[in-house]
Amino acid sequence: MKQKKSKKIQPKVSIILGSKNDYLCMVEAEKILKKLKIKFDTRIVSAHRTPKRMFEWAENAHLKGYTCILAAAGGSASLPSVTSALASIPVIGVPIETKKLKGLDSILSMACCPSGAPLATMPIGKAGAVNAALFAAEIIGTFDPKIKANVLRWKSKQTNSIKKKPK
Amino acid sequence: MKQKKSKKIQPKVSIILGSKNDYLCMVEAEKILKKLKIKFDTRIVSAHRTPKRMFEWAENAHLKGYTCILAAAGGSASLPSVTSALASIPVIGVPIETKKLKGLDSILSMACCPSGAPLATMPIGKAGAVNAALFAAEIIGTFDPKIKANVLRWKSKQTNSIKKKPK
Amino acid sequence: MKQKKSKKIQPKVSIILGSKNDYLCMVEAEKILKKLKIKFDTRIVSAHRTPKRMFEWAENAHLKGYTCILAAAGGSASLPSVTSALASIPVIGVPIETKKLKGLDSILSMACCPSGAPLATMPIGKAGAVNAALFAAEIIGTFDPKIKANVLRWKSKQTNSIKKKPK
Amino acid sequence: MKQKKSKKIQPKVSIILGSKNDYLCMVEAEKILKKLKIKFDTRIVSAHRTPKRMFEWAENAHLKGYTCILAAAGGSASLPSVTSALASIPVIGVPIETKKLKGLDSILSMACCPSGAPLATMPIGKAGAVNAALFAAEIIGTFDPKIKANVLRWKSKQTNSIKKKPK
Amino acid sequence: MKQKKSKKIQPKVSIILGSKNDYLCMVEAEKILKKLKIKFDTRIVSAHRTPKRMFEWAENAHLKGYTCILAAAGGSASLPSVTSALASIPVIGVPIETKKLKGLDSILSMACCPSGAPLATMPIGKAGAVNAALFAAEIIGTFDPKIKANVLRWKSKQTNSIKKKPK
Amino acid sequence: MKQKKSKKIQPKVSIILGSKNDYLCMVEAEKILKKLKIKFDTRIVSAHRTPKRMFEWAENAHLKGYTCILAAAGGSASLPSVTSALASIPVIGVPIETKKLKGLDSILSMACCPSGAPLATMPIGKAGAVNAALFAAEIIGTFDPKIKANVLRWKSKQTNSIKKKPK
Amino acid sequence: MKQKKSKKIQPKVSIILGSKNDYLCMVEAEKILKKLKIKFDTRIVSAHRTPKRMFEWAENAHLKGYTCILAAAGGSASLPSVTSALASIPVIGVPIETKKLKGLDSILSMACCPSGAPLATMPIGKAGAVNAALFAAEIIGTFDPKIKANVLRWKSKQTNSIKKKPK
Amino acid sequence: MKQKKSKKIQPKVSIILGSKNDYLCMVEAEKILKKLKIKFDTRIVSAHRTPKRMFEWAENAHLKGYTCILAAAGGSASLPSVTSALASIPVIGVPIETKKLKGLDSILSMACCPSGAPLATMPIGKAGAVNAALFAAEIIGTFDPKIKANVLRWKSKQTNSIKKKPK
Repeated sequence: MKQKKSKKIQPKVSIILGSKNDYLCMVEAEKILKKLKIKFDTRIVSAHRTPKRMFEWAENAHLKGYTCILAAAGGSASLPSVTSALASIPVIGVPIETKKLKGLDSILSMACCPSGAPLATMPIGKAGAVNAALFAAEIIGTFDPKIKANVLRWKSKQTNSIKKKPK
Repeated sequence: MKQKKSKKIQPKVSIILGSKNDYLCMVEAEKILKKLKIKFDTRIVSAHRTPKRMFEWAENAHLKGYTCILAAAGGSASLPSVTSALASIPVIGVPIETKKLKGLDSILSMACCPSGAPLATMPIGKAGAVNAALFAAEIIGTFDPKIKANVLRWKSKQTNSIKKKPK
Repeated sequence: MKQKKSKKIQPKVSIILGSKNDYLCMVEAEKILKKLKIKFDTRIVSAHRTPKRMFEWAENAHLKGYTCILAAAGGSASLPSVTSALASIPVIGVPIETKKLKGLDSILSMACCPSGAPLATMPIGKAGAVNAALFAAEIIGTFDPKIKANVLRWKSKQTNSIKKKPK
Repeated sequence: MKQKKSKKIQPKVSIILGSKNDYLCMVEAEKILKKLKIKFDTRIVSAHRTPKRMFEWAENAHLKGYTCILAAAGGSASLPSVTSALASIPVIGVPIETKKLKGLDSILSMACCPSGAPLATMPIGKAGAVNAALFAAEIIGTFDPKIKANVLRWKSKQTNSIKKKPK
Repeated sequence: MKQKKSKKIQPKVSIILGSKNDYLCMVEAEKILKKLKIKFDTRIVSAHRTPKRMFEWAENAHLKGYTCILAAAGGSASLPSVTSALASIPVIGVPIETKKLKGLDSILSMACCPSGAPLATMPIGKAGAVNAALFAAEIIGTFDPKIKANVLRWKSKQTNSIKKKPK
Repeated sequence: MKQKKSKKIQPKVSIILGSKNDYLCMVEAEKILKKLKIKFDTRIVSAHRTPKRMFEWAENAHLKGYTCILAAAGGSASLPSVTSALASIPVIGVPIETKKLKGLDSILSMACCPSGAPLATMPIGKAGAVNAALFAAEIIGTFDPKIKANVLRWKSKQTNSIKKKPK
Repeated sequence: MKQKKSKKIQPKVSIILGSKNDYLCMVEAEKILKKLKIKFDTRIVSAHRTPKRMFEWAENAHLKGYTCILAAAGGSASLPSVTSALASIPVIGVPIETKKLKGLDSILSMACCPSGAPLATMPIGKAGAVNAALFAAEIIGTFDPKIKANVLRWKSKQTNSIKKKPK
Repeated sequence: MKQKKSKKIQPKVSIILGSKNDYLCMVEAEKILKKLKIKFDTRIVSAHRTPKRMFEWAENAHLKGYTCILAAAGGSASLPSVTSALASIPVIGVPIETKKLKGLDSILSMACCPSGAPLATMPIGKAGAVNAALFAAEIIGTFDPKIKANVLRWKSKQTNSIKKKPK
């Protein structure tokens, strides 16, 4: 019986970045995943600069054992939506803040996908990175009670950390 | 012990609507869930008109066996984000098109959550309803291979249905 | 007869903040309330991080003798609107400036409430904090002539402080 | 002593419209005020077409026994903010939907007042008209328990009217 | 007969500022008016903090010999539009850049006046201050050939000052 | 001496349209000019389709006796700003409502001119057409007392036409 | 050797549509190309529904003899930008008007590409379709004098077709 | 035969700037053109400050042997669109970031041209400058295989320079 148990799915998250600079934001997602004891790795996969790499990654991520993909991009953010079209696993998009339009471009180019590219859009920037990690954990929590417990503990800790008085 | 295993999770989706009018849009999510053979039920739960109902539903949905929640709302859309803060399961928000600001208000009030309310925002309107259902199916697909197969079949059907010529 | 008079309503304002950082802005409201000799207290009540605290506060504020609530929040600002839905006293929302969308998200998520959540939205940031306090004083002024006189004196002082020449 | 009691404040609301067309929207406020048994009257007072009428009305409304003013206007909506600067009673602004910018102009020109013009902005259009009336009632409710009870009854009726099922 | 000629209109421009801070921008208008040899004076006239001062100024400016008014304001900029409604002379509005909405609020609240308040809106900020002065000069130039010549000379100088090469 | 008097400036307004469709809006300007007894003529002058015609008209309008130019255009509205750069007389721009961006594009491309192109921007659409005509009349009124009287009479009539009651 | 010269490049344009509905708009591009005697064909290639078809087309279009690609898409318009990243020939994007955000989403998701995806964005809708075809013709005109002459003739015809009077 | 070959078109690009400050951005276009071995020169040509210079340049650029024009401008960016209307060669517009509206004004005033002014709009700022140069190279590449090879090499180099890991 033990063997069977050890063969159960090992949840793992793939973080992909439209550019190197997006790491500054997505390191927040990594921190949360670490705290929640979820495995992950991070790589750069640009829709506009390495389109073939994007294609291969999106199509094959499920074969490599990933449970879901966190895709961060700014501006004309094609990476998350095209990845969500190609992948067989849930894709969560994090709109990176842009210098000029402040991420409004990033969020609109994610949140206006046609039907068939079921991309989950998170808030702009670091809050989005944190929530993307929490959401990935909630997805994993649908079948992995330990991770679910970790998320609930994190949320509860957060609630408790909010003081009553501002000073 | 084996019997217990056969009692594995029966995935089920809760659709909640900020108002009765949102059903016009979310019926599209129902259609997809039916096609993908996923159980669901739909109810009206308004953050501003029935706040207590929202509270109870969000806190207890996981106890009733739901895998995730699709929350549709328009305007100052507090329903999806507060639900995502309260619930222990993934919450997917569908911004309903509004008459005046065309859903820009709905989408911004969903997509600007602080960290701790990991809401997944979908596109405005019917495309959002369809994608919310597909995304729910992808979440379920992370532990239920049959549903996963159904999603892939749906996507592949869609791809094949796209003709090469516009006339 | 005197006793009865001494039993008259003691106006008191509740300031609630979606996060600790909002205090930087709302301290301006505190300053005005002090000048106008209105009692108040301030606490942190997050819709997304302490949703239960929000619920309890909003439902019970009138029992604790508050005349009205000033609710400050930024981004997907659910706190003011849900509070206005739950409370039995007037709720005045102050949209906090956000780093990315500059408070446009905050203001839209307040100013697009459905009927039934009668939230009064103030300007973004410090001007909003000042005006929220003045508005609270005007509400109290509808039954308390001393406070009314204080507001009028403040306004008149402000008018007189505006010099005729820019240098 | 009884006589004195009968002389207590008779709450009354002044509705002012920037143009005749705004009545289409503000009739919703009238309906709510009637239901809540609050006296009111409605007149046209344009900041740009009858600026003197606006001035006189705003400065003298409190002398005529009004408790608060609901001011509706569209586009470059100066009426509500200048009225709030001049009046000694609370002013509640209702941004009217405009044909071209859909009320975004109306709401921004209300919600960006400087400190000293404590205008309470409501949602755009009919929801704003309803909420403005409810908010006026909540203000009156701070000193008039009968009106307060009426508001709570209205809210509770509304909550009960929200069915659980969309069909 | 000569005396009569000497009694001809002496063009003079009134600059009014919604707040003291607006002077930082409008000093650019002063500089241009000086260069073009047009008389002017500048004062603070706030729609929301000194509404009566605004009323008196707008109604009487023509009696004091002003040819036109330059009105600068930021945010819910009621000053320029209400002044243009009250004044008998042309009013030119300069939208001041705001910290939060960057002057979009200022420009929309000027450029959305109803018919009857013929306000001329200039660009946001310093370019607007310069152009407002040039435009005032063009108005004066319609009856004063010397000022007209000054404007044309300024424009021509500007054209000549534009080098052909960026370095 | 009489002859000299008869030789005094005959105010005349040039209306130019970026396209034929803009006439639907600018006919409102024509109506006002007629009522105010100001001469005018209207022609089509497109910045993008007849750029040379625009150049010639803008440079020579003052030689043909025009006092000012009303320039209407929609979308990337280059006509008003380039005309204001080339002309020696005041240019007043009317942003035409566009089908897609509702005139926001028209107004921004007018109201963001650099210094040196002193364009006066009016509101979008018909209110802009009316106000442009009133503003032209106010300009003419700076030297022509009869026209000034006509404008004041028009404004006063408008004020009187505003009823006190909405029904 | 002469024969070979006669075998010179035959310009041909590829029109690709993100969805069948985009044809309604892009038929205008087809009309212009026909008038200018440029060969073309049109097919549906969706970034989100047929991502592989997009990949193959974008990578191989130059091998099939196309001179440039006109790519039309609405909403989260990934098609034009990813195609421009993959293709070896110029790609011209036409933002399709969307029901909710009126094409603002389409244009921003095209016009915010990172460096390396040199997409040329056209105006929203039919004007964009016409201009895309004219621009393609101008590109071809850089090496094909006959097509260049056709474009100049078309532009000159258009100029002449603009009447001087609106009625 | 050799002579004839040497007589083939020498591609050359004209960069024009609406103001000297735009050079800061467009120097990035110069760098790319140098790398791709394309000749160019840069000059200042303002639609609003040197309108005649713009006219002459736009009309005669093709006679001076330019293949295409890169036109950079900010705010009410008339330069690129009017140039595209006047020129016989492709015009590529680069929207310069503005201090107040962050380039949204620049991009909308380019991307909303009417049919007949086939302007190709690039992204805002430096990414736009780089892409404008790449796009110009792709245009030249339609008839000049050496330049085409240079572009492909540049793109391929860029692809290879994108590392797989963010650190």
